[in-house]
Amino acid sequence: MNAAAPERIPVSGPPHESTAWVGAGLLERSAEYFRSPSGRFLLAAPRAARAAAESVRRALGPAVLAEIAVDDAEGEKTLASVERITNAALAAGARRDDAFVVVGGGVVTDLVGFAAAILFRGVAWNAVPTTTAGMADAAIGGKTGVNHRLGKNLLGAFHPPAVILVDPRALATLSERDFRAGLVEAYKDAWIGDAALAARAAVRLADVLARDEAALLDLLGGSVRVKAAVVASDPKEGGRRRILNFGHTLGHALEAAGGFGRLRHGEAVAWGIAAALEISRRRAGLAASDAEAVRRVLAGLGPFPEPERDPQRLRAYLARDKKTTARGLASVLLDTIGSARIDETVPIEEWLEAARIMSLS
Amino acid sequence: MNAAAPERIPVSGPPHESTAWVGAGLLERSAEYFRSPSGRFLLAAPRAARAAAESVRRALGPAVLAEIAVDDAEGEKTLASVERITNAALAAGARRDDAFVVVGGGVVTDLVGFAAAILFRGVAWNAVPTTTAGMADAAIGGKTGVNHRLGKNLLGAFHPPAVILVDPRALATLSERDFRAGLVEAYKDAWIGDAALAARAAVRLADVLARDEAALLDLLGGSVRVKAAVVASDPKEGGRRRILNFGHTLGHALEAAGGFGRLRHGEAVAWGIAAALEISRRRAGLAASDAEAVRRVLAGLGPFPEPERDPQRLRAYLARDKKTTARGLASVLLDTIGSARIDETVPIEEWLEAARIMSLS
Repeated sequence: MNAAAPERIPVSGPPHESTAWVGAGLLERSAEYFRSPSGRFLLAAPRAARAAAESVRRALGPAVLAEIAVDDAEGEKTLASVERITNAALAAGARRDDAFVVVGGGVVTDLVGFAAAILFRGVAWNAVPTTTAGMADAAIGGKTGVNHRLGKNLLGAFHPPAVILVDPRALATLSERDFRAGLVEAYKDAWIGDAALAARAAVRLADVLARDEAALLDLLGGSVRVKAAVVASDPKEGGRRRILNFGHTLGHALEAAGGFGRLRHGEAVAWGIAAALEISRRRAGLAASDAEAVRRVLAGLGPFPEPERDPQRLRAYLARDKKTTARGLASVLLDTIGSARIDETVPIEEWLEAARIMSLS
Repeated sequence: MNAAAPERIPVSGPPHESTAWVGAGLLERSAEYFRSPSGRFLLAAPRAARAAAESVRRALGPAVLAEIAVDDAEGEKTLASVERITNAALAAGARRDDAFVVVGGGVVTDLVGFAAAILFRGVAWNAVPTTTAGMADAAIGGKTGVNHRLGKNLLGAFHPPAVILVDPRALATLSERDFRAGLVEAYKDAWIGDAALAARAAVRLADVLARDEAALLDLLGGSVRVKAAVVASDPKEGGRRRILNFGHTLGHALEAAGGFGRLRHGEAVAWGIAAALEISRRRAGLAASDAEAVRRVLAGLGPFPEPERDPQRLRAYLARDKKTTARGLASVLLDTIGSARIDETVPIEEWLEAARIMSLS
């Protein structure tokens, strides 16, 4: 895989189809990959992604109809921000056949993707994630949305980007902590869906951490491939797709109990995976050697800050997750590295016990 | 067609499927028809639809999780109102498998349908139109949305209701003027897609105006059937679906030029059809007798207030419609009663000339 021949990964699912392109140096040639029915683009990016956005702006030249500044703080992921973005697009003369290009992390792609979903009842958008978390997880599958004071991502739409560019050079300005936290999601995808990728990426962990382009492309491309296959099999998140939430059942509770500031999302997921390994050993027959292999990679990506382990505090958050539908808490367990299952029978108490004993060393 | 055997009309189109039920007395038995994955409902209605909403509330009984008051003024069709509705739903403990029931006119179904589209990235909704315009046009096809200071319906989503109940008894409190204006859309559907229906409904115009249930059910059911067939052939409004806009090209301009208060939407469409008849005679070979038959029905539905005819004032609004995509103005012309076509070559000047000479007497 090199700059001359990026990998093309179709991600299907009604009503739209996305294409992810994975390769080093795509940013500079992004005009060849982006799609817009009119040929015109609304370029949205936060200050933090200025370097990557500047590459895109140069590549698109006069096809950029307007540049729209957005804030990438979680607290700015609101309906009011969506309104500001659509106001800016309309004021610039946007038409229903124009398309957004969104350069930034997960907050920005969620937010601007949602603005694209509702402007003229849906215009096309192109995503350029600038974080490892965004490359591994956001945008693919089409979840967009904003937060509500009663919870994260309560308002939104399924509106997949037409194109996703995954270029490791877009990570240049990403902090070491965010770089590592996001990689948890990429390895997670390998663990639930691709044993060979998981083995390769474990061996090359040091190269990945050194931001070696070939090692990163192998891991990130593989992660996109796993996610695309899962999403294609279940576009609207009713069943199978939930295996992507491996580590998220407890992870969400750890993140919320810590007040969304103490742990990065990926760090909370790492601890959530550690707990899921305990339960998978008992309930899904996960081999000790597989659990240890996963733990070793997580330890290498860390160390991560200590999470909340108090059952009293965690219980309420797990109960809330359970309440969002009439069905039970959906727990994702690992059978072997490369194969996951949904288990709706794991009681909250079992997660609380796993949170007490989980370890990443 | 009677209360015992309502007509079932599947309206397909990705990603959801809608079912319209057409029959007298459905309101009282609405619990048999509505759909909600959880069995719980959020009932949203404006004061004007209180009588119909009360029938629905009685039918649903304890399955109503919360009642949400909404305003049915066009000026309240805003993103702020959507936020208020989602706040109320979340405060009531709504989950992603609950469903809305929306009782009201087109403003209300557009607004609450959009709230349903974005709450938890989309929950199911059931529509009970209480206006002839709503029965003939709104909800079916899945267009939902709100206005923006730069134009109507600029923000929204395609999110079809799971179920649409068309019950002429829901029209009981509708004003005579709104009743007649909405019927323009129902006849319009017959003219573009069902010659036999158009002939029957022309003969029974007096019965329709007297709100005779059998005559209304024939016209409204037929209108839904035409619209369902057109939407199924083109779910996302790229091509063929635009024939539903017969009378709307000039109609939108007449409505906007009059300041959205002078003419009801249906009244503007009636004048827009009168102009389209002139152009259809010249360009689509429409027979004089067909044009006269359409005009006679429109005259019977009226008289309607005189529209703006000043070319200087209308030109800007037509030009704006044209600008929303890079393609030309999409004009809908009638070949014969029952058959319409799109013509993208009609210049704005020709519409302005038709507006000058159009007549409904």
